[in-house]
Amino acid sequence: MFSITVRDHIMIAHSLRGEVFGPAQRLHGATFLVDATFRRPELDADSIVVDIGLATRELGGVVGELTYRNLDEEPDLAGINTSTEVLAKIIADRLADRVHAGALGEGARGLATVQVTLHESHVAWASYERAL
Amino acid sequence: MFSITVRDHIMIAHSLRGEVFGPAQRLHGATFLVDATFRRPELDADSIVVDIGLATRELGGVVGELTYRNLDEEPDLAGINTSTEVLAKIIADRLADRVHAGALGEGARGLATVQVTLHESHVAWASYERAL
Amino acid sequence: MFSITVRDHIMIAHSLRGEVFGPAQRLHGATFLVDATFRRPELDADSIVVDIGLATRELGGVVGELTYRNLDEEPDLAGINTSTEVLAKIIADRLADRVHAGALGEGARGLATVQVTLHESHVAWASYERAL
Amino acid sequence: MFSITVRDHIMIAHSLRGEVFGPAQRLHGATFLVDATFRRPELDADSIVVDIGLATRELGGVVGELTYRNLDEEPDLAGINTSTEVLAKIIADRLADRVHAGALGEGARGLATVQVTLHESHVAWASYERAL
Amino acid sequence: MFSITVRDHIMIAHSLRGEVFGPAQRLHGATFLVDATFRRPELDADSIVVDIGLATRELGGVVGELTYRNLDEEPDLAGINTSTEVLAKIIADRLADRVHAGALGEGARGLATVQVTLHESHVAWASYERAL
Amino acid sequence: MFSITVRDHIMIAHSLRGEVFGPAQRLHGATFLVDATFRRPELDADSIVVDIGLATRELGGVVGELTYRNLDEEPDLAGINTSTEVLAKIIADRLADRVHAGALGEGARGLATVQVTLHESHVAWASYERAL
Repeated sequence: MFSITVRDHIMIAHSLRGEVFGPAQRLHGATFLVDATFRRPELDADSIVVDIGLATRELGGVVGELTYRNLDEEPDLAGINTSTEVLAKIIADRLADRVHAGALGEGARGLATVQVTLHESHVAWASYERAL
Repeated sequence: MFSITVRDHIMIAHSLRGEVFGPAQRLHGATFLVDATFRRPELDADSIVVDIGLATRELGGVVGELTYRNLDEEPDLAGINTSTEVLAKIIADRLADRVHAGALGEGARGLATVQVTLHESHVAWASYERAL
Repeated sequence: MFSITVRDHIMIAHSLRGEVFGPAQRLHGATFLVDATFRRPELDADSIVVDIGLATRELGGVVGELTYRNLDEEPDLAGINTSTEVLAKIIADRLADRVHAGALGEGARGLATVQVTLHESHVAWASYERAL
Repeated sequence: MFSITVRDHIMIAHSLRGEVFGPAQRLHGATFLVDATFRRPELDADSIVVDIGLATRELGGVVGELTYRNLDEEPDLAGINTSTEVLAKIIADRLADRVHAGALGEGARGLATVQVTLHESHVAWASYERAL
Repeated sequence: MFSITVRDHIMIAHSLRGEVFGPAQRLHGATFLVDATFRRPELDADSIVVDIGLATRELGGVVGELTYRNLDEEPDLAGINTSTEVLAKIIADRLADRVHAGALGEGARGLATVQVTLHESHVAWASYERAL
Repeated sequence: MFSITVRDHIMIAHSLRGEVFGPAQRLHGATFLVDATFRRPELDADSIVVDIGLATRELGGVVGELTYRNLDEEPDLAGINTSTEVLAKIIADRLADRVHAGALGEGARGLATVQVTLHESHVAWASYERAL
């Protein structure tokens, strides 16, 4: 199995709902390092997993919709508890949509999975992987 | 599949038995960065893998039983060759016990696996993953 | 010259005032890794720069006053533009106050400087150093 | 499942063929951090995945055949488009050959897989995993 | 003293002249992580060291003149032995020129120094600092 | 001012004397990442700070005298409280001796300072710098 990963980041404000979140129920914020990993069993005709330039551009597009915002007030996220795990899934799903729409190139249609890892600090991170 | 990871560390002395360990047969020591990763296919009712506060606290409890010690003289580890791989398993097993005892919350009973990675330097690390 | 550094982190929301900040004028947030470095020309009677346990505890106290908050609404920070550079100075000044109050031990009165570095992402960080 | 990973690096020149590579079609270069991960379901008689000393030495041997070279002119790589993914596979395959030849010790014959990850920068890396 | 640092990277081919360079006399290559640090004793009117957006853009401009190239064939570098130290100086000097030309904003004229650090691997890096 | 840094590591056991060290008074251990930084105002005739190959070799020699040992039983360290700060000084002093003995080459006689940083974990490190 082959994979490539590209990294970007977002800087957001949000609050979390549920006693389990303790002080994170208050409005606070985070820098999330965002790692997007694409996997496939065999390389494409160019000997790559996916065009790393397109992968970087499309990841940039997805994170550009989130960064420098208060997620509590984003219409797209209304009613969603934006835990790190949930944000990883949102970013992975949006990347999957872009793959299916052809934005990562025709070769990307052969991708097997996408995984998104969000590092919220040097001591905690979360991840979500799904099929493509 | 979702995961979250929390990091802690231990600073221990020990020696290893077996010619394969070369100079590490002498009494020496290590800082191990300890990454505990919890995985499950679906999030719990709070939209998380596990309460990160409880996960951090329980990992702290497990590493607190090991750190600042000479493992060669720990009664709990008598007769055990404390290679990095074995220490990863010991920590994972102790975390599993705490999950099963309910220390990571009721939601944690839905966890699928726990993985422990021990970084012994910037150029070497070991990992162990088991079902919960 | 000797130094020791301890690391902690904060997760905060804030907005910045001034066109120079571009999209960061909106309410957003950040995880700041906080590195506090203490320097002195000679070690103290215990052969250390400062008690690393006390340094960690006091840094934890200072960052605990800031983390999981919206800095725009903190009375202590009213009227302050909380750029990364300014936050580094605030944390350094508060650590200096604790050194002068004896919270880092009597030996810490021999410290020459304190420096605080705030990492806002994997591609940007800021620092402030002052005399003690 | 257990794993151990050892890290080394190479510094090479090369060019890539195909429009998808954009400016990387020009002769340029890269430092690749090379992480080799060995996995097996159970530890060997020495309580390890593989002798870390031998793993380090053999990885050093494999990267020593590549580093400080212009890969465009290496006879062994003639006609090969040396993308990061392809280089990961080449290194993994060469490590597999050494495992099969006994260079990592008799215990290494019980290894299940080898994975090689090549970090080309702080924002991009690629990986290849294969059975042994 | 305040500072801010921004990070970018270049991927270049080159060879080095002189027996001291050993195998690096052959045509090879490197990824250099490029950290540019700007220092000044007092913040500007916006409470910053320098506009981090402009600093990032101008650093991107400077590294864009070098990346994805064979430095042995760059007319600008003819006759120059492009050691890591020398490349750090070239990048710092080019950033200084941009500061003096006003490309980092009027406030940047108050900067005291610029330092450039080039990481060539996880085990080696070089740095150059100069006045502005 | 120019600098180059090379990294190695040691894995040692030791205990510390003095109440200030708390649980570290027990026999325990550490991996120390060891960064040796050499500085000089102007480059030598080869356009470098110091031969990075020799610097790596000599740092390896110095750390080879310490690693995989119980420092409490090393005759060379009898009566010395081996805090991280003190170990940084010991390594820096031994490197300085090697510079003065010519082991880093004739050009190294122009070095201004050597600094040694010891990382004991992901959240703590210490440093010592001295003239050459």
